[in-house]
Amino acid sequence: MNSYSSIQWGNGVVRLLDQRLLPHETLYIDYQDYRDLAIAIREMVVRGAPAIGAAAAYGLALAAQASKASAADGLLADLEVAGEALKASRPTAVNLAWAVDRVLHRVRSQNLAGVAALHKVVLTEAHAITEEDVQACRQMGLNGLPLIPDGAGIVHHCNTGALATVGIGTALGVIRTAYEAGKKIHVYVDETRPRLQGARLTAWELGQLGIPHTVIVDGASGFFMRQGKVQLCLVGCDRVAANGDTANKVGTYNLALAAYAHGIPFYVVGPTSTVDLSTASGDDIPIEFRSEEEVTHLGDQFITPQGTRAINPAFDITPARYITAIITERGVLYPPYKGSLGRIVGYAPPGA
Amino acid sequence: MNSYSSIQWGNGVVRLLDQRLLPHETLYIDYQDYRDLAIAIREMVVRGAPAIGAAAAYGLALAAQASKASAADGLLADLEVAGEALKASRPTAVNLAWAVDRVLHRVRSQNLAGVAALHKVVLTEAHAITEEDVQACRQMGLNGLPLIPDGAGIVHHCNTGALATVGIGTALGVIRTAYEAGKKIHVYVDETRPRLQGARLTAWELGQLGIPHTVIVDGASGFFMRQGKVQLCLVGCDRVAANGDTANKVGTYNLALAAYAHGIPFYVVGPTSTVDLSTASGDDIPIEFRSEEEVTHLGDQFITPQGTRAINPAFDITPARYITAIITERGVLYPPYKGSLGRIVGYAPPGA
Repeated sequence: MNSYSSIQWGNGVVRLLDQRLLPHETLYIDYQDYRDLAIAIREMVVRGAPAIGAAAAYGLALAAQASKASAADGLLADLEVAGEALKASRPTAVNLAWAVDRVLHRVRSQNLAGVAALHKVVLTEAHAITEEDVQACRQMGLNGLPLIPDGAGIVHHCNTGALATVGIGTALGVIRTAYEAGKKIHVYVDETRPRLQGARLTAWELGQLGIPHTVIVDGASGFFMRQGKVQLCLVGCDRVAANGDTANKVGTYNLALAAYAHGIPFYVVGPTSTVDLSTASGDDIPIEFRSEEEVTHLGDQFITPQGTRAINPAFDITPARYITAIITERGVLYPPYKGSLGRIVGYAPPGA
Repeated sequence: MNSYSSIQWGNGVVRLLDQRLLPHETLYIDYQDYRDLAIAIREMVVRGAPAIGAAAAYGLALAAQASKASAADGLLADLEVAGEALKASRPTAVNLAWAVDRVLHRVRSQNLAGVAALHKVVLTEAHAITEEDVQACRQMGLNGLPLIPDGAGIVHHCNTGALATVGIGTALGVIRTAYEAGKKIHVYVDETRPRLQGARLTAWELGQLGIPHTVIVDGASGFFMRQGKVQLCLVGCDRVAANGDTANKVGTYNLALAAYAHGIPFYVVGPTSTVDLSTASGDDIPIEFRSEEEVTHLGDQFITPQGTRAINPAFDITPARYITAIITERGVLYPPYKGSLGRIVGYAPPGA
């Protein structure tokens, strides 16, 4: 489906496309130890909420492979240790914990099976999570399609494409679906400081797909809105709380406020695995703070004076009242989200 | 007053601190030809609305020096040619045109004087503009002082300090004045993509002054507002229209919208030379678009995929309704600005 894959599994190895080096270098790294994979997630070799969920599921497959346990209980204990390490790699995206818990739940539910059978259960569940992501992305694209006016200018933040998922992406999946349906669109790509996922990854993906786009600095979105060039915003999400408050890449909230001031629809796109009904509101979502160097440096190059301090929240919270709708694979949800999320997400997903 | 000077005049030479290299290198460049100085303004060796106004005034002194005219009319013609070139170097900040017109007006008003006397008139007027900027900065700092609560968190965009002016700065001058008056403040420094004037210049100036600060990416301001860490925003301006709409560095508008959504005061700080009553509203302010490479590159380093297009407005317009007050050297102006600007700015400045 895509000419590149964020995550592949084969012969007992997880292969990741190193997204830190894109677009200038295409390097795949193989992981055989879940601890190395957890470090890779933390260091953003792979990133994007759905993608790190799938990566963590395969991390458990690596842990199962490496386990010396000869009984189911021992294997489960080893998987639980690995699961904790994988979950701890990044705190904000709930997909990580969701995928780990889902695999562990499946293993526990088959607690009487032998070790060899359980190894297979882990891998089968990881494959299922991956395949469901592909399907969910496709369906989000179709569900979002009617919301994209022909001729629309779209502001997009961060990266939400094939690199951030296993399928065609979330917000970028909607953009791709609209483009392939023949809609004339233009994407204003927020460069997305500090890690520049927009300028590096989204621009690269849109380039591969031939979708018209222009990179802008994050502070310029309001300027183009005021010029009448923007008809909607599309962003992904790392965690949607029960009330609809949404954690996403830092800068999303400022974008939502600009859209709100202009009466421009602001759509969040994500699979239901990103919805966390156990988190009441955005205030309860843990926000990851990353290294100051992401702000003070570009590559090895100091931007700021030496010794300058920075503070670097990797995510922010957009309160539900600024979100026009949430596009999921099960449908487009409108406010009040407490009701719509509860109705559509509040049952166990198939396969869980 | 400052340990560094954006602009100095001496022995027939304009000396600029090359702000493109800060904070890593302190290089002064001497200019003897106004055409080179116009290029330096365009390339942002010197930047900041008041500073480029002063630089342009000295540019006319260079032009007078180089003129071979033996009569007043010939000299005036040469100065007019130079003035057009200097004005054309950057279109948005009105201070450039204001300073050039002011010097030319002074020369014209003494049209009967001899060439040697007129040379002196040009230089005297350039010195006056410079000295008035020093005084205006000091007074803006004092006028803004009562608006800064003790313990305030302040978001600041771009650079508005001694580097952007000849004095202590506009918005940074208010910050400095508050700090030196003993107020405990903390500055959240918007890094200010694409040219990173915040991360490079403002962080450097605040570091020199010992004022507590932290650099943030431009998209993070709303996050810190939502956390209750921000009590006000302070920005400079490149042109204030008659209705109060204000052009300033791109990203200012998004910041103003975030402040507005949080009920946080948003103050614009600038000398009355930045007010342009002949421009009715923000829609009439010409916006400079700069090279795509400012967005797609950092230094020589490509950020985006090769061939990626960017669009790079250097400024944006913040409509007057989002501006709590405009702090000038003649007082703090409140809405409706048509009235307050007209009353306070609508007479000829002393010396014009």
